[in-house]
Amino acid sequence: MNSSWIGKSIVSIDQFTMDDIGDIMDLTENMRNIVVRRGTCDLLKGQILANLFYEPSTRTASSFMAAMQRLGGTVIPINEVQYSSVSKGETLVDTVRTLSLYSDCIALRHHNVGSAAIAAAACSKPIINAGDGIGEHPTQALLDFFTIVQKFGHNISGLTVTMLGDLLHGRTVHSLVKLLTMYGVKFNFVSPASLALPQHMCDELSGRRVKYSTHTSLDDVLRQSDVIYVTRVQKERFTDEAAYEAVKDSYCITPKTMSFAKHKMLLMHPFPRINEISPEIDDDPRAAYWSQIENGMYVRMALLAMVLGKV
Amino acid sequence: MNSSWIGKSIVSIDQFTMDDIGDIMDLTENMRNIVVRRGTCDLLKGQILANLFYEPSTRTASSFMAAMQRLGGTVIPINEVQYSSVSKGETLVDTVRTLSLYSDCIALRHHNVGSAAIAAAACSKPIINAGDGIGEHPTQALLDFFTIVQKFGHNISGLTVTMLGDLLHGRTVHSLVKLLTMYGVKFNFVSPASLALPQHMCDELSGRRVKYSTHTSLDDVLRQSDVIYVTRVQKERFTDEAAYEAVKDSYCITPKTMSFAKHKMLLMHPFPRINEISPEIDDDPRAAYWSQIENGMYVRMALLAMVLGKV
Amino acid sequence: MNSSWIGKSIVSIDQFTMDDIGDIMDLTENMRNIVVRRGTCDLLKGQILANLFYEPSTRTASSFMAAMQRLGGTVIPINEVQYSSVSKGETLVDTVRTLSLYSDCIALRHHNVGSAAIAAAACSKPIINAGDGIGEHPTQALLDFFTIVQKFGHNISGLTVTMLGDLLHGRTVHSLVKLLTMYGVKFNFVSPASLALPQHMCDELSGRRVKYSTHTSLDDVLRQSDVIYVTRVQKERFTDEAAYEAVKDSYCITPKTMSFAKHKMLLMHPFPRINEISPEIDDDPRAAYWSQIENGMYVRMALLAMVLGKV
Repeated sequence: MNSSWIGKSIVSIDQFTMDDIGDIMDLTENMRNIVVRRGTCDLLKGQILANLFYEPSTRTASSFMAAMQRLGGTVIPINEVQYSSVSKGETLVDTVRTLSLYSDCIALRHHNVGSAAIAAAACSKPIINAGDGIGEHPTQALLDFFTIVQKFGHNISGLTVTMLGDLLHGRTVHSLVKLLTMYGVKFNFVSPASLALPQHMCDELSGRRVKYSTHTSLDDVLRQSDVIYVTRVQKERFTDEAAYEAVKDSYCITPKTMSFAKHKMLLMHPFPRINEISPEIDDDPRAAYWSQIENGMYVRMALLAMVLGKV
Repeated sequence: MNSSWIGKSIVSIDQFTMDDIGDIMDLTENMRNIVVRRGTCDLLKGQILANLFYEPSTRTASSFMAAMQRLGGTVIPINEVQYSSVSKGETLVDTVRTLSLYSDCIALRHHNVGSAAIAAAACSKPIINAGDGIGEHPTQALLDFFTIVQKFGHNISGLTVTMLGDLLHGRTVHSLVKLLTMYGVKFNFVSPASLALPQHMCDELSGRRVKYSTHTSLDDVLRQSDVIYVTRVQKERFTDEAAYEAVKDSYCITPKTMSFAKHKMLLMHPFPRINEISPEIDDDPRAAYWSQIENGMYVRMALLAMVLGKV
Repeated sequence: MNSSWIGKSIVSIDQFTMDDIGDIMDLTENMRNIVVRRGTCDLLKGQILANLFYEPSTRTASSFMAAMQRLGGTVIPINEVQYSSVSKGETLVDTVRTLSLYSDCIALRHHNVGSAAIAAAACSKPIINAGDGIGEHPTQALLDFFTIVQKFGHNISGLTVTMLGDLLHGRTVHSLVKLLTMYGVKFNFVSPASLALPQHMCDELSGRRVKYSTHTSLDDVLRQSDVIYVTRVQKERFTDEAAYEAVKDSYCITPKTMSFAKHKMLLMHPFPRINEISPEIDDDPRAAYWSQIENGMYVRMALLAMVLGKV
């Protein structure tokens, strides 16, 4: 890893070249080895991460905390922004500048698109975007990518990746599609018509001559998929309950679904799941969601190490 | 301490033999010496405890955090489950499996009986039950037992233990009675008729030939008690306010009560107290509740050290 | 620093002599050097701070956490008192005594005047008052003082300090005025008539022959001020919206205000700000509020080191 990321913020997946991604994957693998062999190290001893979560997220917040602690650093958790200075009307910029005077790095989860970029511009310490509204979620895209590479190796050109569910609102899907586009995969987008991938993303894919097709049923593409990435179809996205009831079961993965899928395949989900994936599948070797969660800690360790300048 | 507890979950007081309890008491005493002499040690350096509290509890949560930190480990505090993934409908099993991928051990407080056992079955890292509904609270029973042993020595056979207050709903009482039953103590159960010890527990005590008697007034047994264990009689447990008003003062300990009690006696309470024990008694040498609180940290240090395999 | 502060509580600015203040300023400067040069140290390794915040405060709570972590200690954060034992009716004294059995020091923010003194009297570990209602906020006064001394040196006699805004309710103003009174400064108090400094404080200043004058407009004293200390004029303090609207703009600092101020001047604010200071001023070298925030961490490091006995 070269040193160009020291002190930089990580706001969007667009910041990374393929070389950067390759470096991050290597570093993530190193972090995995440290945790598996020793549990912890002293790389960031004496450094402090401010974990600033305007929206609650047990998984992402815990993952950042564990990542920093496994690198020997400490954490200031700020989860209850609704009860604090912010409820007195303080701006994001003032809160972030304040925390940058106490800590060495800030992980930021916020409900507004663009918040991470605003925060990064306002302060002198690195910001890591932990999800900004329906905008970006770069650490999720990187952990998803690492999980795919773990299974299929670094050359994933030609792989068929099927994205399933609500493709309109999911920041996870948007960040991952952007990332995978660099690697020559072929996409299937399967969603209810009202929750299809945004037109601007389709246009971008067409402009870049990426192969993709759109569907409303998984059955069309189930047998050919190397990766099936499931997201939740939320009832509240439908204006009409009948419309929701009509489609909801088509977007749930059951043991029967798995019986038609490839033997070498990854079933992925960013979690939390409600009923999109039956727990009966949890021990199927193709179920990759536990690996995604575990890899989230390693990716975040890699990014913290990169921007805090100790690699 | 033998190594049989490494990686095991601690769900119920029923898991322990008398030999196990003896080992835990010895280890707790060692932990007390470490804290008194040095404050801290490096036994669990690099290990992470996830402190997963679905119900708030300043005392128990803080005690687990302090215990892990005094062993050199770190903590991921998760206190606001109502605002997080869980409020998005995630199951306990998914939350616990997720945290087991980031941490080395999970302390779980949950409002449903049986939650700790469900969590322990679902994940590969040790779970320590920090209270599950009106079910079990094994760490409380162990700290209560340590406090009794500190005063009366390891041979407590023949001791008269009076349990006072709401004996129907208190998980603390249930766990402690189970534990003390192994040691040949004699019980007095003093409660309003509607809040008496559950019949199945009475049957079990009778079946095991444990000596016990039931009462509605402390006066009957005050002078003969070696331990008086007080729990709160909560107004909301009564359907009838008059019934509550009629009994409430009988279950409060005042300086006058203490004047009739034995000179060598332990007055215990799991806290928080509201008005069951007058603060005027706080400095009476028989008031053992501060020792209970302090010992809670030592017992939890001992259990963390046991299951994390560093004893 | 002599050792007289080991184990002592810090409740009020009145506890300090000028010698004490001088010592604290020197120690704060040392802490600043540690952070700037090395980020962290091991002075309080193995010690635990309980951060007990009944009222939320991102800034003060984060600052105490960062201070303890940069000294090598650890923190038990308790921010959600509304959901915990306290909501079951536990007294402040019981909560504080409990935490004193787990931790080595308690930072306490509470909504009632006098809480810190009550807590300090009840427990054997040092309490640091992190703000008690409209009472005292000694760590804020010390960080404000350090910021003034950084700019003007240790001899600040003769300096003109203007306090602006709501001077009736602000604990920050009250603590700082008390402190500065020892150093021979001259005060201007600028506020709406209904939010003037309390009469008992005016009487005390007169009794001590401190030079001060009162005003309703900043224009009267803007050009002569060496320090302008801004606090918020909150709408809810006015019974009459018209009265609020009439004055609110007079208590906001704009680039135009700054153009009339001295070249060597400090513009201070305890934060959070809403619209009292225009963000356009943030990069003016006279804007000292970012320094105040940063210095808050150094002052709290100094106080923790003092009372935990490792200086």
